[in-house]
Amino acid sequence: MALNKKAAKPRVVALAGGVGGAKLAAGLQAALPPASLTVIVNTGDDFEHWGLNICPDLDTVLYNLADKHNPEMGWGRRDEVWTVLGEMERYAGDSWFRIGDRDLALHLRRTEWLRMGMSLTEVTDRLRRMLGVSSAILPMCDEPVRTLVHTDEGDLPFQHYFVRRRCEPALLDLSFVGAESATLSSEVRKALLGADLIVFCPSNPYVSIDPILSVPGFRDFLRQSSVPKVAVSPIVGGQALKGPAAKMMRELGEVSSPLTVLDHLGDVLDGFVIDHADAALADAVILPALVTDTIMTDLPSKERLAHAILAFAANLQSSPVAAD
Amino acid sequence: MALNKKAAKPRVVALAGGVGGAKLAAGLQAALPPASLTVIVNTGDDFEHWGLNICPDLDTVLYNLADKHNPEMGWGRRDEVWTVLGEMERYAGDSWFRIGDRDLALHLRRTEWLRMGMSLTEVTDRLRRMLGVSSAILPMCDEPVRTLVHTDEGDLPFQHYFVRRRCEPALLDLSFVGAESATLSSEVRKALLGADLIVFCPSNPYVSIDPILSVPGFRDFLRQSSVPKVAVSPIVGGQALKGPAAKMMRELGEVSSPLTVLDHLGDVLDGFVIDHADAALADAVILPALVTDTIMTDLPSKERLAHAILAFAANLQSSPVAAD
Repeated sequence: MALNKKAAKPRVVALAGGVGGAKLAAGLQAALPPASLTVIVNTGDDFEHWGLNICPDLDTVLYNLADKHNPEMGWGRRDEVWTVLGEMERYAGDSWFRIGDRDLALHLRRTEWLRMGMSLTEVTDRLRRMLGVSSAILPMCDEPVRTLVHTDEGDLPFQHYFVRRRCEPALLDLSFVGAESATLSSEVRKALLGADLIVFCPSNPYVSIDPILSVPGFRDFLRQSSVPKVAVSPIVGGQALKGPAAKMMRELGEVSSPLTVLDHLGDVLDGFVIDHADAALADAVILPALVTDTIMTDLPSKERLAHAILAFAANLQSSPVAAD
Repeated sequence: MALNKKAAKPRVVALAGGVGGAKLAAGLQAALPPASLTVIVNTGDDFEHWGLNICPDLDTVLYNLADKHNPEMGWGRRDEVWTVLGEMERYAGDSWFRIGDRDLALHLRRTEWLRMGMSLTEVTDRLRRMLGVSSAILPMCDEPVRTLVHTDEGDLPFQHYFVRRRCEPALLDLSFVGAESATLSSEVRKALLGADLIVFCPSNPYVSIDPILSVPGFRDFLRQSSVPKVAVSPIVGGQALKGPAAKMMRELGEVSSPLTVLDHLGDVLDGFVIDHADAALADAVILPALVTDTIMTDLPSKERLAHAILAFAANLQSSPVAAD
């Protein structure tokens, strides 16, 4: 099914985690008519800090789509201030994960609502509406799934590996604890069923995309889906633009290359987007490939990439795998 | 037993709630050798807000004894800032109870520790040490006791009556919900047993002192105790210096007078302190009375009042009621 045969208002689902994911989500939101984008976000990074429920990837997407993100830090709020963090040090509160005052209000409200019994899906939808975001933002599931990083220094919860230890320990393997008990929420299922295009944002395949695919039923749905599924490589010129993806690949014995991303995700994809820097690899891409500028520095560059992906996808055919 | 017959380092217990209580506690701390004061604090005002455990009277005492209080507001931290409160309004968070950024850190940490299973006594002791306070600060009990205000507009939790409704509804009666299940903590019991003097700070008798006395065993302990027990009137010249005590008295059909305070608490007292403004009432005080300046505007005036109380108490005899 080709995208250009669908209604004038295509319904696009983006899978995202981390900064690259949030950037392309913002580009897609800008490129598409209002309310036609649904972003399904990794929650494997979620954890408790200061007694609050923190959802780093959801918040990065929320803040980017609300244009309230901090482009310098890549996470958190623009024009952030840090009074509470400074005071927490007085009470021996952990300060390795830096929560700013503006950001903190969201964590407080989410935690309060979750403790009242709301689902993370409902809480996230309230927050995005209050932030004036027209796109739907969905956690990959409502059940807790936690990325556990097996390293040469032992097992580390994701944020301890990523923020506290700055990804220094060598990666051996990853687990998504709780994934076996997770389910596709009705909102995720509905978004996937209604999609005309599914975009894998340039997010870390191991710790942003894999947790999403670990939710039982998610990967099968994608393999059987007849809509185009396109991934954007988070690896450009052998490096991750941000984050530990390239380092992880090397530690797992892989070459740090877009082709490694493709090999990792390829069975659910119909098209692959790589940067001009990797144009020489285009012939080795076993799927239809788009070579374009994938580096997003501002909203126009995010929107330009989104338009390029939409145009590329419009000419793609999906080859769904027959249901088992 | 007279105070001046005790050791050079008298052990003083102060009962406190609200701003007047915290002020005299600071005066006593300044007047006494380090670590010789224990403040037992009303927790009937405690409530949940923003999903956090808020203990307004404990915090007012903590901040006053740490010299971090805000003298203009009477509650909260000095040099306070309000970024989180402003952001909470974005998420439709309640803003009628104003939590500043500096103050918020304490509520976060307390809530985290309580959820880990620590008692409020233990949490409070950690916090006062981290704030560099040498005096012991004890919640009146570890069990939740909640002041419920019965008014002509219905029943209101204390903070809703006091802050949200600014004490506008007329008081009919008060309940201390949960008091029947509360117990004297081992720390409160030890402080009372070891005291050479017990001071009732100039706190509201109905909503600061009565909740403390509602803890089963507290009033009996005081009635049977042989150490001097002295109260300072929170009513000066017919008015409460701060708070609704005078208004409450009138609504309960009483005269707004120190004598009403004495009548309310008299069965556990050995001495009563009134302001020069009420000197004409001294003859009507049925207990030994001290007439002095009770208005505390700065630390020297707090300390001066404390010294006057200590000198007054040194000459008092306690007449314990025989155990039933």
